[in-house]
Amino acid sequence: MSGADLGPRGQEPGPGLVKRACDGDVRALGRLISLVENGAPELRAVLREVAPLTGRARVVGLTGAPGVGKSTVTGALVTAYRERGLRVAVLAVDPTSPFTGGALLGDRVRMQQHATDQGVFIRSMASRGHLGGLAAAAPQALHVLDAAGFGLILVETVGVGQAEVEIAALADSTLVIVAPGLGDAIQAAKAGILEIGDLFVVNKNDKPGAQETVRDLRGMIAMAQHGPDDWKPPIVRTVAADGEGIADLVAKLDAHQAWLGSSGEGERRRLARARGEITTLALAELRQRMGALPGDSAVDELARRVAAGELDPYSAAGELIAAAS
Amino acid sequence: MSGADLGPRGQEPGPGLVKRACDGDVRALGRLISLVENGAPELRAVLREVAPLTGRARVVGLTGAPGVGKSTVTGALVTAYRERGLRVAVLAVDPTSPFTGGALLGDRVRMQQHATDQGVFIRSMASRGHLGGLAAAAPQALHVLDAAGFGLILVETVGVGQAEVEIAALADSTLVIVAPGLGDAIQAAKAGILEIGDLFVVNKNDKPGAQETVRDLRGMIAMAQHGPDDWKPPIVRTVAADGEGIADLVAKLDAHQAWLGSSGEGERRRLARARGEITTLALAELRQRMGALPGDSAVDELARRVAAGELDPYSAAGELIAAAS
Repeated sequence: MSGADLGPRGQEPGPGLVKRACDGDVRALGRLISLVENGAPELRAVLREVAPLTGRARVVGLTGAPGVGKSTVTGALVTAYRERGLRVAVLAVDPTSPFTGGALLGDRVRMQQHATDQGVFIRSMASRGHLGGLAAAAPQALHVLDAAGFGLILVETVGVGQAEVEIAALADSTLVIVAPGLGDAIQAAKAGILEIGDLFVVNKNDKPGAQETVRDLRGMIAMAQHGPDDWKPPIVRTVAADGEGIADLVAKLDAHQAWLGSSGEGERRRLARARGEITTLALAELRQRMGALPGDSAVDELARRVAAGELDPYSAAGELIAAAS
Repeated sequence: MSGADLGPRGQEPGPGLVKRACDGDVRALGRLISLVENGAPELRAVLREVAPLTGRARVVGLTGAPGVGKSTVTGALVTAYRERGLRVAVLAVDPTSPFTGGALLGDRVRMQQHATDQGVFIRSMASRGHLGGLAAAAPQALHVLDAAGFGLILVETVGVGQAEVEIAALADSTLVIVAPGLGDAIQAAKAGILEIGDLFVVNKNDKPGAQETVRDLRGMIAMAQHGPDDWKPPIVRTVAADGEGIADLVAKLDAHQAWLGSSGEGERRRLARARGEITTLALAELRQRMGALPGDSAVDELARRVAAGELDPYSAAGELIAAAS
């Protein structure tokens, strides 16, 4: 690799960047993810080139409060799927901050056993300047990793909240990880996270209180309405640091994957995800077009007429839509 | 008044509703504000009818943390401007809750000295189901009140935060009210509220700590950059419950109004406000159109092609924009 297009800022990526990333060039791949983060203008061309190569990767989301051991579970899953020969990518996104910049959990994993494994790619991602924020950036990163031939993509998210729920919606299967001894773990689960969990992991199962945590979770899952053909989220107990319970977790993940296929839910989720991605991009694009218009005559003239009472705001909005389209 | 169009839900407002409101019919006016709150379909016709009658009202925003005495200051201002013969409307909006429903500060004022004054209209407003939320509903309520002939509209907002800043942006002049003895009043002011204040009111000036509060405020205002032609926000000390300092406050408000006119800033604000209103409505409308499309073939077909890798998401977004426009 010449490294010429990984050079100083402002240099355009070479036309071969996607091809090199797909050929296993880790630095080219990293550069593509940076383009996604920054919402670079070249991104459109990249995504056009990438599109025909996508649709093969399996995406697993991992979420949970800080301290439950998300990075340890992630690392253990990487090991397990590497043993099957899958190429595995880890994308760590922090929806609470637009300026993550590489200090996230996934990096700790990178430093350890997978550091020299060419079949593993680990990257944390922010959304510096990406139009539409992480909600738009994350699916684009998934497309790039998918095209680059990673059979499994693990998406790790930090914190609890709406943004996290949106990012969890990107996954085929979502793991909600809790741990005993964290008083708010189940509380967090109650606050909406319960609905997004396809599988629940009680990590640190050797710690006091694990039994109660499992019982609480079981009670909450039982209260949720499940039809006869619905997936019933299993609870898997792990001590991820020792690899304990990981084989069971992998088996349950495979069972969920099989159910996604047989029930049609997997296809439904993929379509909903594409719909959400398209809508988010379209609205961000329109917001930018409208924001770009002031200074130019269209919006200013509409604003003048509304302020003067010559035009009502709905009619003005209609004209603006026409102008921005 | 027959009251026929104030009847059961679902009944259309008579075509004369706007006219009656402009003729001083308080119940017709209340009904119009309810249409705004609910984002009713009739709203477009109402705003079309109202537009030529707008552009005359002066809008003063009042904001500050709970407990500083916003409703007392509002009541005192109502009294002062009524003595000048102005018709005064008070709109109390709570950006922290979409379900205010009438229990807000302004109502307490209504119960008191202005209850029987036909020249005063007091109303709290939520944004139940209004497309675009309060950011879209509040300016529409202002149009209606403006058309109904209120020369002064006082907009009271509760809490501190981004939504409040947006609502404060609706006003020609924004009063930030603080009070001594509320440890977080100045902190709140630091957190962004300082930038929106055209005038600062230290209410409860007879309470311990008033001097320190004024000094802290003065320090913060001095740190802000003011050019030679900029407005320098004055600090007014009041005991609104006794009417103390209100004449001074009114004088400072008039000075600000005069500056808005002479500097061109008033016109600039009105145009920026109209631009914001149009853009918010346009984006809300587009979001609804896009959200309404699933089930119909356009978005679903785009999502299918993106999920299958036949189309990249940016191109799909472009097609969606064309379809929704």
